[in-house]
Amino acid sequence: MFLFFFFSLLFSTVVFAQIPSLERVEPSFWWAGMKNPELQLVVHGKNISEREVNLSYAGVKLAKVHKVENPNYLFVDLLIAPETAPGIFTLNFEKKGAKRLSYKYELKARDTSPNRIQGVTNKDFIYLIMPDRFANGDKKNDVVKGMQETALNRDSMYYRHGGDIQGIIDHLDYFQDLGVTALWLNPVLENDQPRTSYHGYANTENYKIDRRYGSNELYKKLVDECHSRGMKMIKDLVHNHLGSQHWIIKDMPSRDWVHQWPSYTKSSFRDQVLFDPYAAESEKKLMTDGWFDNHMPDMNQANPFVRKYFTQSHIWWIEYAGLDGFRLDTYAYNDAEFMAEWAKEIKREYPRFTFFAETWVHGVPNQAFFTQGNTINRGFDTELPGVTDFQCLWGINEALNGKFGWDEGITKLYTTIASDFVYQDPTRNVVFLDNHDLSRFYSVVGEDFNKYKSGIAWLLTTRGIPQMYYGTEILMKNFSNPDGLVREDFKGGWTEDKVNKFKAEGRSEKENEAYNFVRTLANYRRNNPVLQTGKLMQYVPENGIYVYFRYNDDKTVMIIMNSNDKEGSVNTARFTERVSGYSSAVNVISQENIGALQTIKVPAKTTLVLELKK
Amino acid sequence: MFLFFFFSLLFSTVVFAQIPSLERVEPSFWWAGMKNPELQLVVHGKNISEREVNLSYAGVKLAKVHKVENPNYLFVDLLIAPETAPGIFTLNFEKKGAKRLSYKYELKARDTSPNRIQGVTNKDFIYLIMPDRFANGDKKNDVVKGMQETALNRDSMYYRHGGDIQGIIDHLDYFQDLGVTALWLNPVLENDQPRTSYHGYANTENYKIDRRYGSNELYKKLVDECHSRGMKMIKDLVHNHLGSQHWIIKDMPSRDWVHQWPSYTKSSFRDQVLFDPYAAESEKKLMTDGWFDNHMPDMNQANPFVRKYFTQSHIWWIEYAGLDGFRLDTYAYNDAEFMAEWAKEIKREYPRFTFFAETWVHGVPNQAFFTQGNTINRGFDTELPGVTDFQCLWGINEALNGKFGWDEGITKLYTTIASDFVYQDPTRNVVFLDNHDLSRFYSVVGEDFNKYKSGIAWLLTTRGIPQMYYGTEILMKNFSNPDGLVREDFKGGWTEDKVNKFKAEGRSEKENEAYNFVRTLANYRRNNPVLQTGKLMQYVPENGIYVYFRYNDDKTVMIIMNSNDKEGSVNTARFTERVSGYSSAVNVISQENIGALQTIKVPAKTTLVLELKK
Repeated sequence: MFLFFFFSLLFSTVVFAQIPSLERVEPSFWWAGMKNPELQLVVHGKNISEREVNLSYAGVKLAKVHKVENPNYLFVDLLIAPETAPGIFTLNFEKKGAKRLSYKYELKARDTSPNRIQGVTNKDFIYLIMPDRFANGDKKNDVVKGMQETALNRDSMYYRHGGDIQGIIDHLDYFQDLGVTALWLNPVLENDQPRTSYHGYANTENYKIDRRYGSNELYKKLVDECHSRGMKMIKDLVHNHLGSQHWIIKDMPSRDWVHQWPSYTKSSFRDQVLFDPYAAESEKKLMTDGWFDNHMPDMNQANPFVRKYFTQSHIWWIEYAGLDGFRLDTYAYNDAEFMAEWAKEIKREYPRFTFFAETWVHGVPNQAFFTQGNTINRGFDTELPGVTDFQCLWGINEALNGKFGWDEGITKLYTTIASDFVYQDPTRNVVFLDNHDLSRFYSVVGEDFNKYKSGIAWLLTTRGIPQMYYGTEILMKNFSNPDGLVREDFKGGWTEDKVNKFKAEGRSEKENEAYNFVRTLANYRRNNPVLQTGKLMQYVPENGIYVYFRYNDDKTVMIIMNSNDKEGSVNTARFTERVSGYSSAVNVISQENIGALQTIKVPAKTTLVLELKK
Repeated sequence: MFLFFFFSLLFSTVVFAQIPSLERVEPSFWWAGMKNPELQLVVHGKNISEREVNLSYAGVKLAKVHKVENPNYLFVDLLIAPETAPGIFTLNFEKKGAKRLSYKYELKARDTSPNRIQGVTNKDFIYLIMPDRFANGDKKNDVVKGMQETALNRDSMYYRHGGDIQGIIDHLDYFQDLGVTALWLNPVLENDQPRTSYHGYANTENYKIDRRYGSNELYKKLVDECHSRGMKMIKDLVHNHLGSQHWIIKDMPSRDWVHQWPSYTKSSFRDQVLFDPYAAESEKKLMTDGWFDNHMPDMNQANPFVRKYFTQSHIWWIEYAGLDGFRLDTYAYNDAEFMAEWAKEIKREYPRFTFFAETWVHGVPNQAFFTQGNTINRGFDTELPGVTDFQCLWGINEALNGKFGWDEGITKLYTTIASDFVYQDPTRNVVFLDNHDLSRFYSVVGEDFNKYKSGIAWLLTTRGIPQMYYGTEILMKNFSNPDGLVREDFKGGWTEDKVNKFKAEGRSEKENEAYNFVRTLANYRRNNPVLQTGKLMQYVPENGIYVYFRYNDDKTVMIIMNSNDKEGSVNTARFTERVSGYSSAVNVISQENIGALQTIKVPAKTTLVLELKK
C-alpha cells in the first residue's frame, strides 16, 4: 500500500507491459441510439499518443482526440448520430513508418425490453448481500490464478470466502419467498488488490466483474433472472476512489487524476465542514480530497477525463445489464458539483432509473443537505433522489434501547421523521436497521426478540424504501468492531456447511419465527400499496407509545409501537382523523381480530401492525 | 383560577362596574404623523354599543364603527392623515334621550430624538433582569392597596419581593461598569393576578406598568436614562395569552377572543407538530390553541380585533417609551400567520427596531423554522429576525459537561454552529447561558469555576447577541426545578440586605474574579467590533479542543476552548488561513503576551481569548 503511495506521488514513468502496444479501449463497445451522442474512448497503449486516429462509419464522427501528460493515452471523442445503425467499425491508430494499430469497435443494438431499468422505489423491499459471504455457487472460481489475492480462508474475516454470483442466482426463490423485491450487492467489479479484496470497494476495473464472482455475462444473467421474477437489481458504485491496483491508477493519464498531497493525507471524515458556513477552505479540502484509505487513491473529479471515465462506465452497466438502481458509496466525499452533473446525465439517459447514496452523517439537516431539491443547500441542487437514512436508523435504535422522554427514547424516532420537512421527498430515502458497516440489528437490541420484531415492523411500515441486510431475517448477530464480524457467511451457502439456514428445517425455532415475521410482513407490504405509497400520519408519542398510520383511499394501517417494559393501552379517541369510520382491526402478523377500537392493548416492547376494518 | 376558567367557557354577561358608563378608551392617546394612518380604538362601557360615534378634527376621519357580541364594546376605526397636526379632539358617543358621553382624545407630537428606537444587534450585550427580584428602589410601592396580591414575602419564591424599576435605575452604573449595553426586563405590565404575579407573564393591562414596579412615566424615565448612557431597552411581550384577570378577559368583546375548549385543555407544548409533515390537524390545534396555563387564557389571534389590540399596544410602547427591542415570549404557541403580519407592521413603522423570540425547541432546523428568511418553512416567511438560541445553549452545556467524541462533548457545540447554514442570518440569534426559566449556569457546570469562565468566554466571543441573566456575573446558582430558586434576589438590592454584591467589597474573592472576568471580556467586546460583527471561522474540534476565530480587516481574535481535564496544546499550522501574518498574541483576559504562535498551550478546562498581533 505504502509503496503505491509514493509511486503515485512521484508520477511514474514506469513502463506498462506493452505487447501488443494497443492495450485497451474503454468502453470496449457501446450502443447505437443512445440519447447522448457523445462517447469518449480511453485508448491505452505504449506511446499511443504519437499516433493519428481515423475511422469511417456512417453516423459516427471523430470529434476530437485529446493527448494528455502520459504518452500512453489518447482520449478519443466520438459523436454518434441518433440514426446510426448498429454495427462494427475500425478505429485506426497510425504513425508514419510504423505498423498501423487498429481496434474493431462495435455499436450494439439496444435492448428495449420493458422489464429492464425500472427504478427502485418505495414499492420495493431491498435485500443487501455481501457477495463473498452469501453463497458459493461455483467452487471453480474460488481461487483465480494470476489474481493478487489467492488465499481462501473462511476462518478469517479478512480473507475471501468464495461466495459468488452463482450462489445468489441459486437463492432467488429464497428472496422471493421472503418478500424481497430488489437486490443490492456490495460491489462486484474486479478488486485485484493484494489484501482484503473481499469487500469490493477498491475496484481495479470499471468494466469487469471480478472473476472470483463470475463474469459480466453471469452478472447480466442474474439481473435477467431477477427481472423475469419481477425483482430488481441495484449496483453499488464508488465514485470517490479506485483501488490502488486499478490499471489506470498504475499508469495514470496525468498526475491530476487523483488528489495529490505532500505526504499521505487521510480524509478528516468530517461532513460538517461541507456545510459549515464558517469552515476554513483547508478543512473542506481535507474532507473531500483527503484519501479514504491509503490503498484507495482519491479521484480528482474536477478532471473532465476522470468524470467521463466514471460516468460512461456507469451508463455502460445500466445499458449492458439492464440495472434498476445504483447505491452510491461515500457520497459526501465526492465533488458535489460533479455528482450533480453525473446525476443529471444518468437521469437524462434513463428517466426511470433511480439511485440513493450513503450519507453517513449526523443530523437531519446534514443528511437532507445532500438530497435533491432540498431547500437548505444554499441554492445548489445535488439532484440526488435518495439517501441511506442514517438518522432514522439512530431513531429506531434509540426508540428500542433508549428511555422514553421528552426528546429521548421513542420520541427521538418520532422527531426524526417529523423533521422530514427539510426534504423534497423523503419517501425516496432508504430505511434500514443494519448494513455491512454497522453492528447487526439483533445485537444492537441486545438479542431481545421483542425489540427485534418491533424494529422489523417499523422498517416495513414507515415511509421510504426498506432495506434488510442479509441474515437479519435469521437473527445473524455481531458488532461492527471489528467490522469483519458483521460479514459472516450465511450458513448453508457453502455445500460443506453443516446447517442450511436457507431452509426452515435448518433454522432454529426462533430463527424460523424471525424469518416468518419478516416474510409475513414483507409479503403483506408487497401486496398492499398502502404500506408502499400510502400517506403517513403520526402522533407525538405519549407514555412511551408511538402511534402512526399509513393510509390511502382503500386501506388504513395503524401501527402502535410500545417501547415500554410493560403492557400499555391506547385510547384511540386521539386518532379520530384516521380511526373514524373503522370499527375493528386485524393484526397483520397474527391474523387475530380486534373487535373494538376504543382502547387497544399493546404488550411490552411490541409493535402492532393493524389493518383497520369498517 | 378554576373559577375563571368556567367563567370564560360560559361567556359571561357579568355586569362590569359601570359608573361612568364610558369606562375606557384604549389606546388612551396616540400620535400624529405615524406611518400607518389607521388606528382602532377599543371603547368599553355599559351598553356603549347603543351609541353613535362622532368627532370633528382636521385630518381625522371616522372610518368605521364595529359592534361585537358584547354590547359593552365599540371598536372605532380612525384614519389619521399624514399631515394631521397634534392636538386634542372630542369623541362623542350619543344616544337619543340619553346624556352624551365623550372622551378627549389626544394626538401627541412624536419624539424624533435619534437615540431612541435603535434596535438591538450583535453589537450589544444584553442583561436580563427579573424586576421583582433585582433591587427594591422604592419601598412605597411594595404593596399597592386594591391590587389582588398584596403579600410581600422575600422568604418565598412565589410571592412578590418588592423589586422595582427605581431599583434598576439605581444600578445603571453597575450595568455600565460590567459592559452591558442593553437591558431586557421580564414583563413589567400590570399583572393583577391573585397569586404568583411576580413573574409578569400574565398581564392584566396592555398599557400600564404594574404599580408595584412604578409607573409608565418611571418606565419611560428608565429608558431615557439608558439612552442617555448609550444603553438600550428591550421589552418582553406576550402575544399568546393574557392574565385571566385582564379587564378585557373579564368582560370579553366576544366569545372568540380566546380559544375555547369543551373542557380546560392545556397545550401539548409539542413544537414538532408544527412542522411535522405527517401531523394530525388535532395535534397542531392542541399545540397552538391549548392553554399555556389555566390562568392564562389563550388568545384567538385569528380574530382581527385581537390582532389590532395587541399590535397597537406594542407600537404604542415603542413610540411612548422609545424602546429598542422586543423579546417575544412563547413564540411557537402563537398563530404563525399573525406573528408574520405583526412583524411586518412593527418593521414598517420602525425599520431599525428589532425583536427576538423565545423558541424553546429541540434541534437546529426546528429552531430555524421560526426565523425570517429560512428556507425550510415551506415558503412561509415568519419575518422574525432572531431567536433565543436554545440549540447553542445545549451545545455549550454539552461542550463543558460532556465527554469529547465524534458527535459528543465539545463537538456538539461546533456542530450546532456549523448548522447555521439553515438560517438566513444567525448573527441575530440571542445566545445565552441561562435565563429565568433555566437552571443557573454556575450550577449547570457543577460550580466548576474553570467551566464557568469557559462558558462566559464562549458567550462573549461566539456569533450572535450575547445575553446574561442577572447574577450570573456573581456566581448566583440553583436549579430550575422548582423554578423559583433561579429567581432569587440580587443581594444588595434591598436596603436591609446584609451584603451588597453590587460592590466589590460585598463580593467574595471568587465572585469578584467572576465579575471581573465578565467585565473585562464584555468591555473588550464593547470596544472591539471584531467580537461584535467580525466574521467567524471555526475548525472541527480535535482532541477535545475547539478553535475558532473572529476576524475583520483590523483584528483577529483566536479562541481556544479546551474541554479536557488536562492541559492541551494546539499546533497552529492547521489554522494558516487565519494565523498567517501574525506572530504573537495577547491574552485578552490576563493581558499576558504569547511570544510565538506555532504551538499554544491551553490549561485544562480553559478557554483562551487571544488577540493576534503582527
